[in-house]
Amino acid sequence: MTEVASLPGSTMPSHGGLEMTQSSVKAHTAASKKILPWQSIVAAKQAQLKTAIPEAWRIDEALLDTVDFSLESTQSLDSQNSTILRDSKILSDHELAITEEYNAGELLAKLASGKLTALEVTVAFSKRAAIAQQLAKMFFDEAEQRARYLDDYLAREGKVLGPLHGLPISLKDSFNLAGVQSTIGYVSFLGRPVPTTNGALVDLLLELGAVLYVKTNIPQTLMTADSENNIFGRTRNPRKMNLTAGGSSGGEGALVAFRGSLIGVGTDIAGSIRIPALCCGVYGFKPTTSRVPYTGQTSPGLPGMPGILACAGPLATTMDDLQLFFKAVLDGKPWTYDAVSAAVPYQQTAASELASKKVLRIGLMPEEPRVPLHPPVRRALDNATAALRKAGHEIVPISHGTYTSALNACTLALRFFGLDATNVSLQHIVDSGEPMIATVAASLALPLPEDFGTTAIESVAATPAHRQNGYGIADLAALNVERALFQNAWRCIFRDQKLDVVLSPGAQHTAPKHDTYGMPAYTVFWNLLDYPACIIPYGKASKDLDPTESAAKTVDNPKYDAEAFDGAPTAVQVIAPRFQDELCLEAAARIDAVLNGEQFSVKG
Amino acid sequence: MTEVASLPGSTMPSHGGLEMTQSSVKAHTAASKKILPWQSIVAAKQAQLKTAIPEAWRIDEALLDTVDFSLESTQSLDSQNSTILRDSKILSDHELAITEEYNAGELLAKLASGKLTALEVTVAFSKRAAIAQQLAKMFFDEAEQRARYLDDYLAREGKVLGPLHGLPISLKDSFNLAGVQSTIGYVSFLGRPVPTTNGALVDLLLELGAVLYVKTNIPQTLMTADSENNIFGRTRNPRKMNLTAGGSSGGEGALVAFRGSLIGVGTDIAGSIRIPALCCGVYGFKPTTSRVPYTGQTSPGLPGMPGILACAGPLATTMDDLQLFFKAVLDGKPWTYDAVSAAVPYQQTAASELASKKVLRIGLMPEEPRVPLHPPVRRALDNATAALRKAGHEIVPISHGTYTSALNACTLALRFFGLDATNVSLQHIVDSGEPMIATVAASLALPLPEDFGTTAIESVAATPAHRQNGYGIADLAALNVERALFQNAWRCIFRDQKLDVVLSPGAQHTAPKHDTYGMPAYTVFWNLLDYPACIIPYGKASKDLDPTESAAKTVDNPKYDAEAFDGAPTAVQVIAPRFQDELCLEAAARIDAVLNGEQFSVKG
Repeated sequence: MTEVASLPGSTMPSHGGLEMTQSSVKAHTAASKKILPWQSIVAAKQAQLKTAIPEAWRIDEALLDTVDFSLESTQSLDSQNSTILRDSKILSDHELAITEEYNAGELLAKLASGKLTALEVTVAFSKRAAIAQQLAKMFFDEAEQRARYLDDYLAREGKVLGPLHGLPISLKDSFNLAGVQSTIGYVSFLGRPVPTTNGALVDLLLELGAVLYVKTNIPQTLMTADSENNIFGRTRNPRKMNLTAGGSSGGEGALVAFRGSLIGVGTDIAGSIRIPALCCGVYGFKPTTSRVPYTGQTSPGLPGMPGILACAGPLATTMDDLQLFFKAVLDGKPWTYDAVSAAVPYQQTAASELASKKVLRIGLMPEEPRVPLHPPVRRALDNATAALRKAGHEIVPISHGTYTSALNACTLALRFFGLDATNVSLQHIVDSGEPMIATVAASLALPLPEDFGTTAIESVAATPAHRQNGYGIADLAALNVERALFQNAWRCIFRDQKLDVVLSPGAQHTAPKHDTYGMPAYTVFWNLLDYPACIIPYGKASKDLDPTESAAKTVDNPKYDAEAFDGAPTAVQVIAPRFQDELCLEAAARIDAVLNGEQFSVKG
Repeated sequence: MTEVASLPGSTMPSHGGLEMTQSSVKAHTAASKKILPWQSIVAAKQAQLKTAIPEAWRIDEALLDTVDFSLESTQSLDSQNSTILRDSKILSDHELAITEEYNAGELLAKLASGKLTALEVTVAFSKRAAIAQQLAKMFFDEAEQRARYLDDYLAREGKVLGPLHGLPISLKDSFNLAGVQSTIGYVSFLGRPVPTTNGALVDLLLELGAVLYVKTNIPQTLMTADSENNIFGRTRNPRKMNLTAGGSSGGEGALVAFRGSLIGVGTDIAGSIRIPALCCGVYGFKPTTSRVPYTGQTSPGLPGMPGILACAGPLATTMDDLQLFFKAVLDGKPWTYDAVSAAVPYQQTAASELASKKVLRIGLMPEEPRVPLHPPVRRALDNATAALRKAGHEIVPISHGTYTSALNACTLALRFFGLDATNVSLQHIVDSGEPMIATVAASLALPLPEDFGTTAIESVAATPAHRQNGYGIADLAALNVERALFQNAWRCIFRDQKLDVVLSPGAQHTAPKHDTYGMPAYTVFWNLLDYPACIIPYGKASKDLDPTESAAKTVDNPKYDAEAFDGAPTAVQVIAPRFQDELCLEAAARIDAVLNGEQFSVKG
């Protein structure tokens, strides 16, 4: 029987993870029953996880040996570049077709007409998810039960239960699901009671007819871009094993890229939906907060923490499916499920007005000189603006300044995130005695970026002494004032330049090597403003087209490595003002059509 | 020449105010040029204010002598009960008709068709506002200039400038207007530079065609319900001089009740629109925050203060005019003027769906046992529910509990307001050496309400020691958690009971005697939840119908006094969930039609 931690797929435990698992078995034997060392607790959990994957869905050991699991592995496990999926013969040809030939909208049509059953669709994606194995939780039995119920419903009633009838949707581990443990990778949370209620979005998705079948992996603390923790190991990038899958919704990025899910739901407070999307080459949408229900998460931070708020949103293999998800959720009146969601229905008029515009005015986000774009990212952006101009749209360059500086915005955002002097998210690590993952430890060792800000943020928040005394209301208020200046500056940019949307890189770089993701300056900007933002995959890094390093850098972000990054997905980001989510998605769809053609979709 | 401080109208300086003004003239003569005592600064300001009212619009001294200005005066200065307005002969019969025979919607139609000019309408309301004299600022010259411009525009272009073409709209003093001093009653603010830019709503209203002609009085700190300060004196209730006009938008309440304005704009963080509305017997609407632009205020508090946020909204003489204002503002795309405003257009569908419902399901707010309703308020509520039932609507009583207790909500709100340990709003008083007004001084002497809360708010916020050390982020986060419990409870109430709106008292009492307004428990509840709430005037207190004191009280709110309160307006409040402003207004209009008849409007 195969160890869970060594199952193949897009995510693999690090060597460290594997050793840890083995040594923990011994520790378990020796440990007192009263206080188990963290390794024993994890070993018990992993033993339990093993049983989640049916024998018949497990990959043959010999086949597994063909995979290079080292962190330097440049192997690709996506279905275009790997034969392991077909060679494993776990999915039938019919099941491969179900998971590869349609997007979610097309599947829903086949489900509604009865040409496919919810059960066969659920089993197909469950198998693929089992193979992908970037999973935190799997509940395939319950999913099959649910699928049978939906199939019976359709047969009996002659109509679908809701607009997502029969569609398997994957969820980031943080969403609470009654009866399913939600640890978000903290060993200390293994001791917590299993949630007895669903999160608000879970209830809504079930009401809409979705099948929930899997929860996906995340980083310890949820605040790094490498989805690694001591319970479930590390999520790997299915496009290329030596690159990060991104985070914190890294399991979603990898699973969707593997087509183990067509629509996955992540959360985003600094880029946690968009970073995995751009790393794994899939579509990702961070809405305005309070549009898609967020309430009912297992959270690493201080409950009620003010400042920049997180939100929930979809990752998908096509733009159409991002829109399908958003519209289905909004038409489901999310505010009746979640007190935080605004009672603002889907704004069809805003979407239609954008759709009927012949020429879009697209602002171009200025490059941050202190965080210069890596060559593949700059090429993707240049190609995108050229293609959009050629298609007749207007590109309006935005000049770099105090409030358009991605580094200034990032610095301010980091100050907001640093306001919790109690460091709850680290305390959860200490509680079990488990070690910090590499990226969490590295983030603590970083000096505070004293020379980043050129804006006069009137706060003593950056001084370590203050960190110990705890931040006060006046510190937060000062950050709010600074944030309002950014918000007002962007209101004026959109209004004065008559912009429909803004086009921006999603990051300085493509998916970098493990544990080297840089500051999320180009993503967290839109969390600071609470603007909706959409990642569109577009092209790939090429060692032939992008051979040289970018200019000298003042910020220690990952170094460009033409060889290592070769073939990594590139992407662009489309942004609209707060609450203009429908317009943002519609504009992104039009831009996607120009860049990737109407029929583009991410095939594993 | 009459002293500004002794001009008549709905607001009068207290005796103290008058003495203060006289003594300050002497102080001014003696003061050094470098540091003027606060009285001298005020005297200089008042001398300047005198010139704002043209000689021809000043009331004859002999006529003034017929007014009883004492704080115990039971005189009414509204146009139904007083002859002073007509006897002064300042307004012609035509001008009296302009100000008394139409609501704003009807006036706009006459303005658009050219049957009335913006100039004659502006002069008529300016005169009436000058008489009302509850004003902080008057800029009749600029208003006349603006009115001429609009009249020329209509003549030249053959169309109106915007949906508010030619309509005089009054503004609470806190709204910044370029070139007009904004002191919000702080003597120390007299030394501040005059604003050089308009607040966001000011820009929008001008774009919509409105005429701005007057700013209105408020209380020192804006955090009490008696609109008194050391610069402009005290705003009096035009319905009955011995009763408070309410606050903090007390000038608006009094001016609209006097028909010196048909639509005035106030702000509300605990009831500051609704309290003056219910005290003065006019309509008032507090929207969800981020619907009507608020940015660009002169604020008494800490800039960027988190927690419960203030919002802007209208007071008016009819329900129709509240709706007219809200729709005009929303159709003007407020989010392009103000970065805080949500890009959510007027939700016609929500309003239409409510309008087409035959039967409304109306939740009935439970009475707070520790703050029992005064007899006239209970009678108004009983009459209202009886009338609504008779009209075929369903009344659904909501039971009293942890999250439906007005006192619990008020306690939590007060803790939010108390988070600013720097007490900026008091520092502004200290800065000039002026005395605190009576209600501010009284609020500081109050013991903290230790036995109010039955909910376990995990915060040390209530301890005076902590007050000195300053509150931390964790204190705010704990309050946020508690607030979320209230928000979720009410989401469930609306959803489970299938409610359209909730009907509630606006306060425990009618307008009480000066400086005795109680805790704003029934108004601040909806700021805590950020729910839209509308005050509908309905009936009057009667010493014959409401002779007896209510039950024993545990909270020291104002004592019921049948004689003193006789004739005070009563009111009900209509509430809808967050962002359902359009539905709230539509439901309030239907309820108003049942209670007051289709043609009801507040005639001075």
